Amino acid sequence: MQTPEERLKELGIELPPAPKAIGVYKSAVFHNGLCYTSGHGPLKNDGTLMTGVVGSEHTVEDGYEAARQTGLAILATLRKELGTLNKVKRVVKIFGMVQCTADFKQHPAVINGCSELLRDIFGSDLGVGARSAVGMLALPVDMRVEIEGIFEVEMP
Amino acid sequence: MQTPEERLKELGIELPPAPKAIGVYKSAVFHNGLCYTSGHGPLKNDGTLMTGVVGSEHTVEDGYEAARQTGLAILATLRKELGTLNKVKRVVKIFGMVQCTADFKQHPAVINGCSELLRDIFGSDLGVGARSAVGMLALPVDMRVEIEGIFEVEMP
Amino acid sequence: MQTPEERLKELGIELPPAPKAIGVYKSAVFHNGLCYTSGHGPLKNDGTLMTGVVGSEHTVEDGYEAARQTGLAILATLRKELGTLNKVKRVVKIFGMVQCTADFKQHPAVINGCSELLRDIFGSDLGVGARSAVGMLALPVDMRVEIEGIFEVEMP
Repeated sequence: MQTPEERLKELGIELPPAPKAIGVYKSAVFHNGLCYTSGHGPLKNDGTLMTGVVGSEHTVEDGYEAARQTGLAILATLRKELGTLNKVKRVVKIFGMVQCTADFKQHPAVINGCSELLRDIFGSDLGVGARSAVGMLALPVDMRVEIEGIFEVEMP
Repeated sequence: MQTPEERLKELGIELPPAPKAIGVYKSAVFHNGLCYTSGHGPLKNDGTLMTGVVGSEHTVEDGYEAARQTGLAILATLRKELGTLNKVKRVVKIFGMVQCTADFKQHPAVINGCSELLRDIFGSDLGVGARSAVGMLALPVDMRVEIEGIFEVEMP
Repeated sequence: MQTPEERLKELGIELPPAPKAIGVYKSAVFHNGLCYTSGHGPLKNDGTLMTGVVGSEHTVEDGYEAARQTGLAILATLRKELGTLNKVKRVVKIFGMVQCTADFKQHPAVINGCSELLRDIFGSDLGVGARSAVGMLALPVDMRVEIEGIFEVEMP
């Protein structure tokens, strides 16, 4: 069985830089075997964020890409904090928020961009957690998607 | 003292079918004595969801009914995962989201539909947890209410 | 090193009354070394709430003040439940929601009002947790900000 780092390599995925906090918070906090990650946005490898509103400026596919990129940013934080993604034991839960119009209702299809990434890296059982997917009026610095998570980890 | 299953029976409550995931997630994940339930919607016994916007299409009472039905869907998931509701030890927390208009401000009265159900089944101490109740621009497949929770349980 | 109660006194901060629940929930629930606080609003010392929409009726500074006041309300709950703030060991996570317009994007600057307060009371390491800051369409009784949190504590 492959490790998460091996899967990442096989899929040819390059992680973006681990995001810096844009306020008074930590990117991740550890307690009792769990890692609580802060709300992450779709940070690209060039350091910019994917922005805009799904349902008007952007399609569901654009939203999916943003959710996947947000997942990559979360992975970057986890690797930075833990040294390696191999210390992530399972996905417990994610809360996925889509900046969208009032008539957009396909939030699960958007947040799947993150969920499918986590499944591909951590496996179809331990890589799939509980989840909520919802539509937000507005997100910080116009980010298209914001996702926070709880992960079971080997404590750093 | 009655068990949760006995209370449910006495109240004549029939649970809806446990909801199937509408994306890449699990309905519930267990860790260290806690059960994290995914965002659930107001799934009816006929398998359809209660939809629409509270504050325009729907009254606060319609919202209350949807929150109660969402609580029943959460109970269906808990029973499916644990075998019996008698293994639920307490409600730790729920996060209740109402799909509403910008001028609707009675979210607590809506989410009470779920909270009063949980109190009636699990008791006025252990059945009452921490809570947030908030107003959302949009929810998946137009569901009227979405609620996620954390429950203390006997691990399955 | 000063205790949280000593810092509070030195900063001349007077806490508002601990908020009463406006629904069927508890202000805080304890489990396994963590305190889950319910969604709190910007409760003032006179018992009223700071209301209104950030981005139209209110500036980012007004939002910051409301987030700080919400943090004070959370501290009031923690002190009431624990007897003293000195039993709070660290901030694990907060979820900060701003009632705002669709084009308002400075949620981090608003929620810093709470985060900077917690940092000043509990210290620049243990007082800074994980965080999400987001924009909501509507909050209960028109409150300007709502924040829920998870704190590591000495169990009461």
